[in-house]
Amino acid sequence: MERVVQNLKPPYYAVLFTNQRTAIDDAGYGAMAERMVELAQQQPGFLGVESVRDAAGVGITVSYWESLDAIRAWKANEEHLVAQARGRSDWYAQFQLRICKVEREYGFNAPAADSQLQ
Amino acid sequence: MERVVQNLKPPYYAVLFTNQRTAIDDAGYGAMAERMVELAQQQPGFLGVESVRDAAGVGITVSYWESLDAIRAWKANEEHLVAQARGRSDWYAQFQLRICKVEREYGFNAPAADSQLQ
Repeated sequence: MERVVQNLKPPYYAVLFTNQRTAIDDAGYGAMAERMVELAQQQPGFLGVESVRDAAGVGITVSYWESLDAIRAWKANEEHLVAQARGRSDWYAQFQLRICKVEREYGFNAPAADSQLQ
Repeated sequence: MERVVQNLKPPYYAVLFTNQRTAIDDAGYGAMAERMVELAQQQPGFLGVESVRDAAGVGITVSYWESLDAIRAWKANEEHLVAQARGRSDWYAQFQLRICKVEREYGFNAPAADSQLQ
């Protein structure tokens, strides 16, 4: 999957999820995280997702959506609700979730980006 | 520094910077990144910053600001302009920068979060 999403046209919406993992159940968490990305991609109004986690267990995941209604529907998805409950009971020590309107953006690709990444 | 920023009150603005590092000059990049956080904290209207980078060199940095004017002033800061130029010439293979309005947010702290993090 593309790590930096570059093909969108504002205005649209972002769900900005910053979190600190507990030390609990890495395998279960990993499987859930993969499944949630797969499921999100199937939702109406999904535009893309970017996600990074560092060695200290701090993660930032940003998902992009066409509308606030699309975000509401995703939040209320049954399988997602189960994952959200496990997040609070087991997987997250701390998180902050922000709903944002993306107003402007610009991007950059280095001329030799492909070769620099090899 | 706090990794998850939890004390803000919408509405305010976020600069969402998703990027892929090149393999060039890790030491110089690290020093610049630290200095930019230090400098941003001194700017009028700065509210906070969250930053994560993974082992593949993909990073997401989100800085929070009181207003679009505060973001414009930070973008035009002289020392920051020098860093931006080095970013394009050397440090980033790819990036996307989004200006967002944070409309709503909520947070979570696990009851035993402190002990889980030890």
